[in-house]
Formats: sequence, structure tokens, C-alpha cells
Amino acid sequence: MGRLTGGDPSLLRRINSAVVLHALRATDCATLTEVTRVTGLSRPTVEGVVEGLIEAGLVVEKAAEEGAARRQGRPARRFRFRAEAGHLLGLEIGPHRVAALLADLDGRVIGAQAQDVGETAGADERLGALHAAVAELLRRAGVPRDSLRAVGVGTPGIVEAGGTVRLGTALPGWTGLGLGERLSRSFTCPVLVENDANAAVVAEHWKGVATGTDDVVFVLAGLSPGAGSLIGGRLHRGYGGAAGEIGALHLLGREATPERLLSTTDEPLHPLDEQAVAEVFARARGGDPRALAAVDRFIRRLVHDVAALVLALDPELVVIGGWAAGLDGVLEPLRRELARYCLRPPEVALSLLGEAAVATGAVRLALDHVEEQLFAVEGAVTARR
Amino acid sequence: MGRLTGGDPSLLRRINSAVVLHALRATDCATLTEVTRVTGLSRPTVEGVVEGLIEAGLVVEKAAEEGAARRQGRPARRFRFRAEAGHLLGLEIGPHRVAALLADLDGRVIGAQAQDVGETAGADERLGALHAAVAELLRRAGVPRDSLRAVGVGTPGIVEAGGTVRLGTALPGWTGLGLGERLSRSFTCPVLVENDANAAVVAEHWKGVATGTDDVVFVLAGLSPGAGSLIGGRLHRGYGGAAGEIGALHLLGREATPERLLSTTDEPLHPLDEQAVAEVFARARGGDPRALAAVDRFIRRLVHDVAALVLALDPELVVIGGWAAGLDGVLEPLRRELARYCLRPPEVALSLLGEAAVATGAVRLALDHVEEQLFAVEGAVTARR
Repeated sequence: MGRLTGGDPSLLRRINSAVVLHALRATDCATLTEVTRVTGLSRPTVEGVVEGLIEAGLVVEKAAEEGAARRQGRPARRFRFRAEAGHLLGLEIGPHRVAALLADLDGRVIGAQAQDVGETAGADERLGALHAAVAELLRRAGVPRDSLRAVGVGTPGIVEAGGTVRLGTALPGWTGLGLGERLSRSFTCPVLVENDANAAVVAEHWKGVATGTDDVVFVLAGLSPGAGSLIGGRLHRGYGGAAGEIGALHLLGREATPERLLSTTDEPLHPLDEQAVAEVFARARGGDPRALAAVDRFIRRLVHDVAALVLALDPELVVIGGWAAGLDGVLEPLRRELARYCLRPPEVALSLLGEAAVATGAVRLALDHVEEQLFAVEGAVTARR
Repeated sequence: MGRLTGGDPSLLRRINSAVVLHALRATDCATLTEVTRVTGLSRPTVEGVVEGLIEAGLVVEKAAEEGAARRQGRPARRFRFRAEAGHLLGLEIGPHRVAALLADLDGRVIGAQAQDVGETAGADERLGALHAAVAELLRRAGVPRDSLRAVGVGTPGIVEAGGTVRLGTALPGWTGLGLGERLSRSFTCPVLVENDANAAVVAEHWKGVATGTDDVVFVLAGLSPGAGSLIGGRLHRGYGGAAGEIGALHLLGREATPERLLSTTDEPLHPLDEQAVAEVFARARGGDPRALAAVDRFIRRLVHDVAALVLALDPELVVIGGWAAGLDGVLEPLRRELARYCLRPPEVALSLLGEAAVATGAVRLALDHVEEQLFAVEGAVTARR
């Protein structure tokens, strides 16, 4: 590290700037004396850095904002991080709807917008609905598009590092779609595309039911469950971005297809959509024996898939989210069966964020990106992982 | 880091010592000038550190060893790391045998010893056989017991951080056994206990078929398969040490037990041991249709368990080892089925280390421990993960 002090002065300025910004962001507001104490930097250095941050729009003097309400004598000047200096978007693309969250640079959500989309809508129609939702959200919040610093996106499918959907059978026209590239045309800031279950596990860890644990599997329970995992607090994407795609296990073909699983007749359920499944569940609640048997098969399948994940990964906590999480009687059988068959059963909890999980995770991914940019130099110094 | 130069001089000495040792260990031997260049330390510092390392027995002057074969003039003194300054043991405890490998501080194996144990042997008898094998190995190699710096152990079962077997159904009397504590009575150095599949994946990554990849699942394929995983080059133990215990998946009970799976009659196969299974496989090779069907069921079960691991983790490479790896016709069905059903099929390879995988991994774990001790300070400075 000694090289830095005698070396590149602009690098040193960037480090000091990141350190001061970090200190200010961690508090509501602070005096120069406080920043000097926390950072270990000299007073002239802190003064210079804060001036630069004010010019960049990232810091503001608090007294200057609040006008002339001063006490006797000259009070110490106080400064704060301007979380409103930029904005983030968290987008969710799903089979039935698209949704967008708008947040400030502290990750505080300041607006939301969703729009229904038909299950059969193609990629153009689906992305069109997303663009409309984003435009409406920005308009209502009065946030100009160029204030956006990063956009996170959660989507079904296996997502490659460049934001292309390698495989996405849940949405028409999705496999092979250059989603990151398509969305980047509408934004001047970076667009980060992530698998929806991966975004959801990040969200539950950030502000959901998993804030206290770093080893979490989030099961996006639908007709074909997918999962996102944190291992030691970090997203486990897998070597090819396909980790957690446990729904494919039934494709092994020696077990019934979901269409047969949920059928109450001798014929496969067709079309297999959420409405048809909801009807089966409603009939089961009404006591129909064939519907009860179908629901039992469905839950057993889900338990099996979740057990496979748990045995492979051994998480501390399994969070059940997505459409099937709302069904009666999913959680208890899961807990009971995992306790019976897993060598060390994890805790099982329902998603706290529910429908907002994917978009909230997308906000967090955008925030991670911005924080990396703002604090990258400091990150390198403290070897933050 | 600036604090160090003005701060604790003994810490600084330890850092410098670790840096010099690391540099010497990376080469066959080196002159003080070379060490000075590589480490960036001053010549007097290097001289002082090397003297200290010679006193500690970790470094030796090469000319001093080789006698008076000197050229005209005074040649530069050359120094080397003394890999023989201490030794490591890698132990394997299995259902049929115990095995021990002896290695030097470079991890080079210099001796091996194995001993058969009956499947029904209790913990005392099994550990007795292990102690006898270790004693014989040390005696033959002429290595005194107090030269051991660390002992690694690979065992079936879920191993807690303290070396206690939390659950180990594969060996009689194993669940609840304080294995680390029991073995520690025989050694003055640290004893590190690890699940056998975890040890095996470390071994294949170190000197086996997985040297080129950091995302590996090793399947210890037996009657009930277990797995060890590296994620980003690091062992993934799971929150409670139970990651990869995929064999329990069949316990979900809605599939046949292994006894029924491998039966060629209407009755469960009893006792279900490797000899009985080998007979079924032999009859299958002879064309017996019921044996062929049983083998087919067995391989399908293995494929299913491996598929569950692959879908959960998405590794780059799956290594098949253990007893069932030697069976005809295991690898091709695995490759074919994974390619059909996994969204991004991994490579599949047979273990290169075979029967030696677990003990070799145990050596590596012992070596990791010693390296951490020798280079811990340097590790902290460079923030090695």
C-alpha cells in the first residue's frame, strides 16, 4: 500500500473520495471534524474531497439546505450524502405481468408500477409493456431518465453473463433473446440481467425473511420450480448460470409430467396454466377426492425438488416464494418431509416480500453495481469480497 | 498497511519470514540475491530471516549439503526449503478398509499403507486397524511420530467442525463418534476430520482429473451416493456440513429402496452388500434379464441423484468415483441422461485417483493446514481467499 502515497496522486484522490463518501453515507449527516475522525484523513484533505463531492452533486451542505436557522455563534457545517443524486430501477419480467420499482441511491423505493401481460405475449409485446411501465413510473415520480445510474432486471431463464437468455422456456420467444442488449437501448446507464430466483434470494437477504442468514435457498415455486441460492452471502450462479434449475428434475421422465400430476381425470390437464391449477386446488378444498389426490401429488413433487436442493446445498434456511407459495398446505408438508428425510433439515419460511421479491432483488443488484462504482477503490483497499 | 512498519516489530518479522519461506518454497533453491529481488525486501532483512529459518530447521543451505564441489572463486550461497522438515498423514476410513498416506511438507507422498477391516467392525476395531496401519507406515518410512505436523482424515458421514461424526450410517458405531478427539490422542499435531467425498473432491482438484477446474462435484458412487463440491475452488460443506448427501433422496420413500432396486426376485436383496451387488452385475453381464433390469434401475437411480446435484449446483465437471465407478456402463448413461435433462450439461469424467482419492484429499487438507500456519501472516496481508 505504501506505493500509493508516493505514487499516482489521482488514484489517491479517488481512494480518499470513496472513503469520505462511505463515511457520509453511513450517517445521516456529519461535520468535517467527524469525517476527519472516522476516516483518519487530515482536515485539509477532507475539506478538499468534500468540495469535490459537492461539485459532483453527491454531497450537500445541510445548513445550506435548511436555510438560516442558526444558533448563536458559528455552528459547525454539516454535510450529507445526496441519495437523490441518482436513481435505480428494479424490473421484473414474468409470465403474467411486468413490474418496475424506482429507488434512490440508498436503495429506498420511491415508486412502483406494474402492468399485466398475457401468457402468450411475444418478446416484443412483453418488452413494450415493460417500457410503458417504466415510462409511467418515471413520469409520476418526476425523475428524468438520465438520473438513472443502473437498472436491474429479474427474468425467468438461464441468463448468460452478457445478459442474453440462454434458455427460457417459461416465456414465448425468450430463449436466445439478447435481453440485456435490448433493454440497454432504452437506458444510458448499465443494465444488469439476472435470473428471477437469483434476484429473489438477494431480495429476501436484503429486506426479507433471510436478513439474518448467509446460506439461503429461495424456491420460486410454480409449476416448474426454480431456485436461487446464497452461499456465504454470495449469489451462487453456477458455472454456466444454471444453478437451481431444479424444475428440470421431473424431465427425467420416469416420473409423471406436471400435466398428469395435476390432472383429476385420466387425461393430462390441458392447458396447464395457473388458472387450471387454481381450480384443482379449489376443488380440493371442496373435498373432491380426485382433486385432493392431485394436490397431494403436486406438493409431493415440490417437496422432492426442494429436498434435492437441500441435500445438495445444505442451506440454513429455505424460503418459499412464487405462485405456489400462496397455496394452502404447502409449507407444513415441506417442513415435515424435510425434517424426516434431510440429514440436517433447514428452517423453512415463506417469502416476506411476496410478489415484490424479484423486482426488489433487481433494485439491490443495481445498487450493488452503483456502490461498486462509487466505492470501488475503497473496495480494493479493504479487500471487501 | 503503513501501521505495520511503525508498529509491531515481531509481526513484521513474521510477515517477512513467511514471504521469504514462500519464495524459497516456490523454487528448487535460490540465492539471497534472488530472494531479495523476488520479495522486494532488503538484503540485510533477507539474510536475517534466512538465518532464522535455518535455525528453525525449515531452510538449509544447499552448498552445505552438497559438500565442497565448488567452482573457482566464491560462488553465491544457495538455499532451499526443507520439505523433509516435517510430515503429513492422510487417512481414509472406509467400510472395508482403512488406508494411510505419508507425505512431506511439499505434499509429496513418500509412503502408503492399507489394511482390510470387516464391514461389521465396530469403531474400536476400525480405529485399531487404522492405528496399526499408521504405526507400520511410520516405521517403514523411518519417520518419528513427532515429525508429523498435521493429520487429515476422510470418513463417511456428516462431520461437525470439531471432528465429531454427526451422522454416519455407513459404519457401525459411527454416529456421534468423537472421531477427531479419539484420533488426537495418538498424535501431538492437529487432526482434521472431513467427510470422505469432500476429501475426494479436494484430491481430484489437487492431482486428479479436476486440476483445471474450480467448479467440481465429486460423486462417491456406492449403494447410497454422497458428493463433495468445490465452488470457485473452495470446498462447499453446507451450513451444517451436510452438503452433497444426496443419497438420502431415495429416502423420500416414494421410490424403491436400494434393496428392492437391486433385487432380481420379488423379495428385497438381503444383505445388501457390495458382494451381493457384484453378483447381480455379473449375472447382468451374463445376460440374465432380471439382473439386467436391476442394473438398469440402479444406474437410473444414480443418474437421478447426480442430475439433482447438477441441477442444484451447475458445476463445470462431475467426477464419478467410489465403488460404483468401476461398474461397466455407468459413465455413458450418465453422460447421455445429463445431456438430455440438464439445462447446461457438465462434463462427466471418472476419478483419476480411484481408490487413493480420499486419502490423497486428506493429505491435501493436512497440507492446507500447515501452509496456513507457515504462511498465515502473508495470507492476511495479501488477502488470499
